[in-house]
Amino acid sequence: MRSIILSVGTELLFGQITNTNSVYLSQQLNALGIDVMYHFTVGDNPKRVEETLKLALENSDIVITTGGLGPTQDDLTKEIVAKVMENELVLHKQSLEHIEHFFNRLKRVMTDNNIKQAYLPERAIVFENDAGTAPGFALESKGKIVVCLPGPPREMTHMFQKKVLSYLEKKSNSVIHYKMIRLFGIGESALEDALKDIISSQTDPTIATYAKEGEVAIRVTSKRKNRKEADEAVSDMIEKIRERIGEFIYSFEDEDLVHVVAKKLIERNISFSCAESCTGGLFAASLTEIPGISSVFDRGIVTYSNHAKIEELNVSEETIEKFGAVSFETALEMVEGLRAITDSRLCISVTGVAGPNGGTEEKPVGHVNMCAILDGEKVCNEYKVRAVNRNWNRNYTVLLMLNMINKLIRD
Amino acid sequence: MRSIILSVGTELLFGQITNTNSVYLSQQLNALGIDVMYHFTVGDNPKRVEETLKLALENSDIVITTGGLGPTQDDLTKEIVAKVMENELVLHKQSLEHIEHFFNRLKRVMTDNNIKQAYLPERAIVFENDAGTAPGFALESKGKIVVCLPGPPREMTHMFQKKVLSYLEKKSNSVIHYKMIRLFGIGESALEDALKDIISSQTDPTIATYAKEGEVAIRVTSKRKNRKEADEAVSDMIEKIRERIGEFIYSFEDEDLVHVVAKKLIERNISFSCAESCTGGLFAASLTEIPGISSVFDRGIVTYSNHAKIEELNVSEETIEKFGAVSFETALEMVEGLRAITDSRLCISVTGVAGPNGGTEEKPVGHVNMCAILDGEKVCNEYKVRAVNRNWNRNYTVLLMLNMINKLIRD
Repeated sequence: MRSIILSVGTELLFGQITNTNSVYLSQQLNALGIDVMYHFTVGDNPKRVEETLKLALENSDIVITTGGLGPTQDDLTKEIVAKVMENELVLHKQSLEHIEHFFNRLKRVMTDNNIKQAYLPERAIVFENDAGTAPGFALESKGKIVVCLPGPPREMTHMFQKKVLSYLEKKSNSVIHYKMIRLFGIGESALEDALKDIISSQTDPTIATYAKEGEVAIRVTSKRKNRKEADEAVSDMIEKIRERIGEFIYSFEDEDLVHVVAKKLIERNISFSCAESCTGGLFAASLTEIPGISSVFDRGIVTYSNHAKIEELNVSEETIEKFGAVSFETALEMVEGLRAITDSRLCISVTGVAGPNGGTEEKPVGHVNMCAILDGEKVCNEYKVRAVNRNWNRNYTVLLMLNMINKLIRD
Repeated sequence: MRSIILSVGTELLFGQITNTNSVYLSQQLNALGIDVMYHFTVGDNPKRVEETLKLALENSDIVITTGGLGPTQDDLTKEIVAKVMENELVLHKQSLEHIEHFFNRLKRVMTDNNIKQAYLPERAIVFENDAGTAPGFALESKGKIVVCLPGPPREMTHMFQKKVLSYLEKKSNSVIHYKMIRLFGIGESALEDALKDIISSQTDPTIATYAKEGEVAIRVTSKRKNRKEADEAVSDMIEKIRERIGEFIYSFEDEDLVHVVAKKLIERNISFSCAESCTGGLFAASLTEIPGISSVFDRGIVTYSNHAKIEELNVSEETIEKFGAVSFETALEMVEGLRAITDSRLCISVTGVAGPNGGTEEKPVGHVNMCAILDGEKVCNEYKVRAVNRNWNRNYTVLLMLNMINKLIRD
């Protein structure tokens, strides 16, 4: 099946918002084995929406629209889809009740505009909106399908996962199952190299790799007659991948590194503290993003100046003078100093050259030293981070710290 | 003039990257007074690129393409544009020299593929690529214009600013000048309310408002016969806006709050330290993102546990028991404790309920207390942040801290 994603909304053409809906839908449709031929974006202009919809229908089997389902006069997607697909809009009672319920719950007054949202094409397969008021729907006619989804990304993705996915699975007479594995410490090209023969001979399951800010993900997708077959095919392939590059895999459940580490720390009740220099608080900030972390996080000391390293962590002035603030020795004294002032089971320290300035031949931008102590066990690592820019260097250094902790508490 | 943005690249249709180029170009074109009619995205497929380009030319005066200018076989934009615009590709000597120079500088070997990048339509107006190898160009024929830009956002935006902007200004026989003002502490709807009469009667300069993660921006744009007139029109309008809502403006130069504050701290050599609870290191992490901050940032203490507040900052156990860890009293003792251990001129503390749990009726999620001392002058503030989610609450709290510092060191 060939699909086209049609985004409706003048705010997109003004550049006021980024079209993340097309990214999400493209990923989902490709995983379903549905080719995405084009993305079209058009403003809230009835004539142009109609022309573009017709053009999209001529060039694909299924058109997915987002936006233009709201209560205002600008919102015209539904009316135009009904017209093009030769169907009438009628009041959909269940949707009206759902909208009334939504307003009652929020104790807000419902206006006449909102009733407009409950009018849907007569033959539509309706998708209830659990995260908002505008229902979505699919409409089939003459071998073509139009799926209309709300514009707000939270409502759209929720509806897609809960309602549209199974509808599309049925359309393709097969079941799709996929799993996303996450890896750290291996680049995308090294990854493709390691799996080259599997990727090139892939039919089902298919393998797609994604790289994002230092982390890499593999999506394994199988499309089979029934759920059991698809599940097994995906599991077998993941086992094959694990045999080759298992050491780099940190999640089989599509969780990012900070969530994986935070979860382990909380579940195993490992109290922790950190001493940061080059990351300037970013390590603490990353972990404290996770709800519930307060049960295990004691304190973080950001010792940016040498002065602070000496006063807060008892790093000796001689060590800094002799080996430098960025050195194995300083990182070690930082973690030991931290260990002395907190009873946290896990202590970690980091010092490095974030850039763009401050690099030397011996210790260029991207040079990082880190140490961790977990229940008396000590690990120290040194890295040369590929120096992209200050932001990247700091983010990647935090990933290195998280990865070090993850390995340390693995078993 | 009507324009269409045509993005070329199969990776976009796979959802592997987000189309930020279209957002940027839409903002720029609208600011130039050029209407954006559609965004089209197509894969690296010669037939479909050609069809879409023709369609775009039929429906606009100017088509801006991004992507497909690289050295590989997939990169076909240039060839197709030349064909559709009935022009031959010829070797552009200057571009070849530029590419050779680029490779020499990086000490990398240049392959034959790269020479392909120096072939350009004979009548093209060439835009040199200061940030990469693929040159961009504009090609005019039969009253239509095609502008081809490289796909990597950094190269594209750089080329647009340095080369394409002045080209488009000349095309529209006028000069466009705009300024972006940044505000904090006023919502987008309150802002529109305050400027309602100006916005509704706007012809030139035009005013557009943008909201992004708690901050608001206003773009004032004027399109006149010459630079002087445009400059003056923009300045006059900004003065009008300043008279009404000047107290909320923190930048007339389109800088965000953290840059404005970091710059002031560095320029005025104000040493600073921070004590964070609910933001968990995010305040320190935000400021240390700015290069050069190490000249003034001494230390940050992330006291997440009560224990840490007592031990690191000398907050009294009684204060926490009596008033709570989130209270005016605790925030005050935190900043005073911090002041006692560092000789920083500026000390700031924060404590609050980040959520999703931990809120009470008296102190719900989003309740924040913060205190700052600058050269002996003390300020304490209490806020109820609109509790969207943990991430938002933390980010907004950091903005509140930055805003507090900005006001404190304003004069």
